[in-house]
Amino acid sequence: MATSPIWASRSKTRGLVLDVIRAARTISRVELAAATGLTGATISEVVRELMDDDLIIEAGRGAPTGGKPRRLVQLNSVARYSVGVQLERNTCVIVVVDLAGRQVARTSFQGVASMPPQRALPLVSSQVDALLATATVDRDKVLGVGLVTYGPQDRRAGVLLTPQPTDEWLDYPVTRRLADSLGLPVLLDNDAAAAAIGEYWMGAVDPRSTYGCIYMATGIGGGVVVSGEVYRGGSSNGVEIGHISIDVNGDECPCGNVGCLENYAGPSALVRRAAATPGLAQRLALDPDAADFLTEFTRIAAAANAGDPTARELVERSARYLGCAAVTMASLFDVDVIVLAGPSFAVAGSIYQAVIQQEVDRRTFARRAHPVRVVPSVNGSDAAAIGGAVLVLQSELTLGHARPEDEARPVPSGPPRWTI
Amino acid sequence: MATSPIWASRSKTRGLVLDVIRAARTISRVELAAATGLTGATISEVVRELMDDDLIIEAGRGAPTGGKPRRLVQLNSVARYSVGVQLERNTCVIVVVDLAGRQVARTSFQGVASMPPQRALPLVSSQVDALLATATVDRDKVLGVGLVTYGPQDRRAGVLLTPQPTDEWLDYPVTRRLADSLGLPVLLDNDAAAAAIGEYWMGAVDPRSTYGCIYMATGIGGGVVVSGEVYRGGSSNGVEIGHISIDVNGDECPCGNVGCLENYAGPSALVRRAAATPGLAQRLALDPDAADFLTEFTRIAAAANAGDPTARELVERSARYLGCAAVTMASLFDVDVIVLAGPSFAVAGSIYQAVIQQEVDRRTFARRAHPVRVVPSVNGSDAAAIGGAVLVLQSELTLGHARPEDEARPVPSGPPRWTI
Repeated sequence: MATSPIWASRSKTRGLVLDVIRAARTISRVELAAATGLTGATISEVVRELMDDDLIIEAGRGAPTGGKPRRLVQLNSVARYSVGVQLERNTCVIVVVDLAGRQVARTSFQGVASMPPQRALPLVSSQVDALLATATVDRDKVLGVGLVTYGPQDRRAGVLLTPQPTDEWLDYPVTRRLADSLGLPVLLDNDAAAAAIGEYWMGAVDPRSTYGCIYMATGIGGGVVVSGEVYRGGSSNGVEIGHISIDVNGDECPCGNVGCLENYAGPSALVRRAAATPGLAQRLALDPDAADFLTEFTRIAAAANAGDPTARELVERSARYLGCAAVTMASLFDVDVIVLAGPSFAVAGSIYQAVIQQEVDRRTFARRAHPVRVVPSVNGSDAAAIGGAVLVLQSELTLGHARPEDEARPVPSGPPRWTI
Repeated sequence: MATSPIWASRSKTRGLVLDVIRAARTISRVELAAATGLTGATISEVVRELMDDDLIIEAGRGAPTGGKPRRLVQLNSVARYSVGVQLERNTCVIVVVDLAGRQVARTSFQGVASMPPQRALPLVSSQVDALLATATVDRDKVLGVGLVTYGPQDRRAGVLLTPQPTDEWLDYPVTRRLADSLGLPVLLDNDAAAAAIGEYWMGAVDPRSTYGCIYMATGIGGGVVVSGEVYRGGSSNGVEIGHISIDVNGDECPCGNVGCLENYAGPSALVRRAAATPGLAQRLALDPDAADFLTEFTRIAAAANAGDPTARELVERSARYLGCAAVTMASLFDVDVIVLAGPSFAVAGSIYQAVIQQEVDRRTFARRAHPVRVVPSVNGSDAAAIGGAVLVLQSELTLGHARPEDEARPVPSGPPRWTI
């Protein structure tokens, strides 16, 4: 097995072949050559190398097509793993995924993001350790950790550029500290961007398409993927759809903008509106002062699903606001698909999907050019955490470029221990 | 001189070297190697080939840096030309630019876009012929024509997907007809995207940056450029910033959306508002029913510039609406710069720039990550037409990929006549 630190540059060719194998699930060498445009000789060589590295395995023979049946290859999904950690305002979700992006272990716990990082990160670290142990995943096979959060970030430096959740998080070296305590490489990214790329990795979208993701948890974020890579812009702080204005005369948001989508469509806005609707508030026993307003939001969403007309009206109103922003996303990024991801679409997702689809169909500027489909995420509530893990896989295995400085490496002690 | 049809695939290497020479104006072979990461041997070979093709020339010697002074090369700007044609609602602008993107001839005329294409395109064609003759540009050196318009398009098929300006234009094969009548290749693109790429070609922006362009003529469009290439999305119909909603409760727009920016900030909205302001309407002798409302708009903009407080208030209000959309552009595309281009920024551009800058500074979500500068276009009112010509240069010379089917080729008659 070749040994090299995971930071070593990977060839684009190798990454391309691996990505096509992943997307196809099983594929022959001849089909690989056709799909990649590479010669048979190059494919044979790369396939041999990937097998030597244990990343792919033989997968029997394909259906006969005239000549002798072709030997197939597939990902060796248990060859490598990665970890996704999502820090949200209330909840921390940790997943372990295999090389195919499939979740093999999951845990979640409350309250960590409201602690200062000095207390929170050791807790996260010990939970990652425990999860890997429970899942009996060999630590030598773990490529790294994708830490995903909301709000502006400096990915390169591995720090958050927001004083949320608490003041201490601003400019604190989150990825470096987590990397040091875990002894694993850590990359920092946006939760919604992570959720978006997860769809690609899972094969849920046409790999050549441009698609968007609206991610709703306590807040609202967004991601766009162009031909299998996250749209980055100048500093990887784009697609902040929760903080675009849908009302130029609206109230000021703590972010500095006015009329932000999040304050109209997000769970806290809906809970606030529901609490001010006397019949409903009493019927659902809502506590407008609940610290975790997502519980209250879930009750309203469930009531809407169950046919409560007032609750349904509130959810539809939230969905229309989201529809307005979805139209902006479609008209600006020219997407083929908009994916709805995150825990706040879990209960009333079908109402959201129907209303947003209707708005996009009626209002997108270039709807004569092509339709825009609104679909639920294949990764559902855990899309961001799974996406965080997928970003590690993608960065290590398929993008094929040397590591940028946007990932923290644990302080070296002894020889490189990653073998891919 | 090598002869090949301009559709032939160009090597990426050759395009990259040419683009670096263009951006640097004059550069030595050693500096070229450093800037491109290519070996000295490769640079020598490509430079020789570009000289054989007459695309670059020697440019004297650089300042001594210890050793012997280095020989410099530069674009041979008179080696090739391209034509940009902008069809707007009222005006058609035609420019001829040289290989450096500098305008060498210009004409404009009224009324063509309100004719059906069967009448308009022969007129455009004869104006292009006349302009090339006046400028004494050798037709064999003309790479092609970039036709840029507003509204949804099918670039591949070379047709407009909108019944504007008149019903006959919808689905009419505009690029094929213009190519046939001119005997030149024609590509179709969006006017605001063209205006955006013109900034890059002129060296007005950091070549690695992500930047946006807000283009205002009678309507409002947008373009985004990422590392020197236009952001395309699924069908090249993105960044339609004039038709994003800034008021979810606003009136319906003919495009299908509600509260579209164009209806709040565009020239026609401003003229309408001014006409309803009795003192101002009389003082400026405004004709609210003028067919060409841009003339009325220009009067208001000039009055604002001259210190008329009512006119200034109206322009500032228009600028605030544009600022709201500029914040959306910045928060979604994560741009470093927003360029203001097009004829409707010509008169009161500095008022627009100041107000939009203020809004972006205060309201952009990730303003802690990096500032966003608002600047006027180096190409001013003709940015879209110049950009149309630049898109031809870029597509032929630097992108280095085989032509997609999104450009119409004249029906072949005799051997290929383009020599680059």
